[in-house]
Formats: sequence, structure tokens, C-alpha cells
Amino acid sequence: MTEPTKIDVKRRILESNELAAAKLRQGFSATGTLVVNLISSPGSGKTTLLESTIGRLSGLKVAVLEGDIATERDADRIRKLGVPARQILTGGSCHLDARQIQREIVEEGFANADILFIENVGNLICPTAYDLGEDFKIALLSVSEGDDKPFKYPGIFSKAAVTIITKIDLLDYVDFDLEAVEDQIRSLNQRSVILKTSARAGTHLDEWCAFLRSTLEKKRGGAGPLP
Amino acid sequence: MTEPTKIDVKRRILESNELAAAKLRQGFSATGTLVVNLISSPGSGKTTLLESTIGRLSGLKVAVLEGDIATERDADRIRKLGVPARQILTGGSCHLDARQIQREIVEEGFANADILFIENVGNLICPTAYDLGEDFKIALLSVSEGDDKPFKYPGIFSKAAVTIITKIDLLDYVDFDLEAVEDQIRSLNQRSVILKTSARAGTHLDEWCAFLRSTLEKKRGGAGPLP
Repeated sequence: MTEPTKIDVKRRILESNELAAAKLRQGFSATGTLVVNLISSPGSGKTTLLESTIGRLSGLKVAVLEGDIATERDADRIRKLGVPARQILTGGSCHLDARQIQREIVEEGFANADILFIENVGNLICPTAYDLGEDFKIALLSVSEGDDKPFKYPGIFSKAAVTIITKIDLLDYVDFDLEAVEDQIRSLNQRSVILKTSARAGTHLDEWCAFLRSTLEKKRGGAGPLP
Repeated sequence: MTEPTKIDVKRRILESNELAAAKLRQGFSATGTLVVNLISSPGSGKTTLLESTIGRLSGLKVAVLEGDIATERDADRIRKLGVPARQILTGGSCHLDARQIQREIVEEGFANADILFIENVGNLICPTAYDLGEDFKIALLSVSEGDDKPFKYPGIFSKAAVTIITKIDLLDYVDFDLEAVEDQIRSLNQRSVILKTSARAGTHLDEWCAFLRSTLEKKRGGAGPLP
């Protein structure tokens, strides 16, 4: 018997993740929960965007799962807003996986939320391959990270149904060609929805929340692949 | 025979990497090459720092290895400055490994450089575990990434002998408590050298280059662990 290679082990892990993700998706379909998987570099503004989003989703039950290597910090920030949040510490792993989500959503407030946000570990690479049973992935890219990122990290920008360009209040102070970035994203993913926000200045947050509400309604109306 | 687990495979990979890194370190010791492994999130300014550094190291032979998932962009930026640079595309992997460095440094200009910069894949997690035969690791953290990062990514900030806080020209436009960040870094790594730079404004770049020159001299003078 030959020894399994790194590739064999990775394939087995991904297959087992796919099974867990399919079960999650079935459950979220039954409860009509819209599930959003947020992926970006560290510091692109995932938690800050969620903080600004929660107050604008009044009337909806929102819950948040936070993935990190260390600290309860992000879940604490969300809980302060009165929304159920759980911190998943990955023990050094650079991404969340579907089994970790399964373990958390058995709790009250998560399985039956209207919208469940999953904030993945800060990383533009590893989380891309792991399906968490979400309706869609969102890639965040802050303008301070530079305008070469979609082509340098094509995996996530090809897979994300939505890209949010964050911190646009900094556009005057950094070199960032917005048009070039939109061209890169569209060439990787023609159907990608592109939003531009500043959580600090409150820019385009109503548009983003309207998008979430209408996508939730479409899911509950039995729409096909979202968004 | 039981099947090797993910952990077994990872351990085997890391052990084999350690062997390759030890050989590299021996070679770099013989040629008196100072080797610096730069690690950060995507968009923290690794390539921009190197561009600003190269012109300030006149009289020294500098070479650069660039790690990325995709594109030759970073190596192209360095080559424009007349410095030998090679792009290592990792085929989806979130870090460089020592064997990839071994394959590149056989070329003229790399093995006998005075200073070899290795710019790792943009990622605060995966590159931390892989020794590349370097003299020390440098962690970069841009002020636009937020002041909670050292405690959220303790692995790299514990291991990096030097932390460079970049883009300090943006301090007026973002929420970033410099003192709190320095406290976090020091509590993870008491001996860490902390520098604060802006490549855009040219701030503290001479100090950084003086640090590199003196560290190179110390290495050639047979100093102990660097810096």
C-alpha cells in the first residue's frame, strides 16, 4: 500500500467538507435562512461592515459566526450590539470548515436566523476552497490594499458572487484605480455584483442592506442560484 | 497499518522543510548573504517597501524572490529597478517553502547577493511555519489594517524579529492606536525591533536601511542570532 500524499489527504478533507456543507445547505433551506460567507485579508473591514450592517437590518433576526486564529474580540464587538455571535477559534488553521459551522448552529438563535453572517478567518487564500453551506461568498477588498489584488488572488474573486470594495473614504489618500479593479473582477467573474462602501462614512450601506433584504426575499420565494 | 492523518502529513512536510532550510542557511552563511523573509497580509506594502529600499542600498548586491499565487507583477516591479528578481508561483499554496528557494538561488546573482529579500505570499498565517533559511522574519502591518492584529495573529508577531508598521502617512485617516499595537507586539516578543515607515512619504526609510546594513555587518563579523 502506497502512502497517501498531501494531495490525497487534502482531497479527502475537501470531500468530507462537501458532505457537511450539503447538509448545512439543506437545513438553511428548510429554515429559510440566508447565509453569507465573508472572506478577505486581515483588516479589510469585515467586522466593521457587520457592525454597520446590523443596525440597518431591523425587523430581521441576524446571527454572526466569527472565525479567528485567536481572541474573542470580533464576537465581543457583535454581541455588544445585542445580536447572537459565537467565536470559532480554528486552532491555527487558516479557514473555517463546514463541521465547525454544524457544531455552532445547533444553538438557539443561529439555526433559525433570517440572515446568518459567517466571518471567515482573515485570509484571501485558504477559505476559498471550503464550502460552508452558504448561499454565496462575499470578497471584501479595502482600497488601502492596492489595486492589483483581484488578479493576484484570482481564486476568491472568481468564486465570490459579491465583491465589496471597502474604505472608499480613503480613496484620496492611496493609489487605487477603482475602474481597473472593477475590470479585473469582471474579467474573473462576469456576474459578480460589485458594491463600494465606507463603514466609517456610512457610504452605500443602505444599498448593501437593501441588496441583502431582496436576496433573502428571493431565496424564500424559491429563486434559483443566488444572488 | 493505519492511514496517516492530516497532522502526520503536515509534520512530515515540515520536517522535510527544516532539512532544506538548514542547507540553505549553511550556504548563505558561506557566502555571507543576509536573508530576510517578509511576511504580511496582502496589501500591507511589502513590494512598495522593497522598491523604496533598493535605491537606498547602493554599494550592496541585492536580489529579490517574490512569492505569489498568480501574476509576475511583483517581480516585474523589482526588475524595473535593475535588481535581479524571480517570481515563484506557488500553485495555489498559501506560503513559500525552502525547496522553492533552493531551486531559485542556483542562478547567478541570487546565491552570492549581499542581501536577499524573500517576499512571501500575502498571508499572515501559513508562511509563519515554514523556515526558508532566512536570518530573520519581518512582519509588516499597515495602519489601515487595524490595531487588533498582533493579538489576532500571534504566530507571526511572536516569531518575527522585526515588525514594520507601514503606511504611517495614513494615521490621521484611520483608527489605529500605535501605542497599543507596540504593547501587543512587545508582549508577544520582548526582543522585537519595531520600525514605523511610510514608503509613500519616505518616512524612516534611512533608519530601516541603516538597520539592514548594520545587521549584514554583524552577520559577517560572526555575530550570534540576528538581529
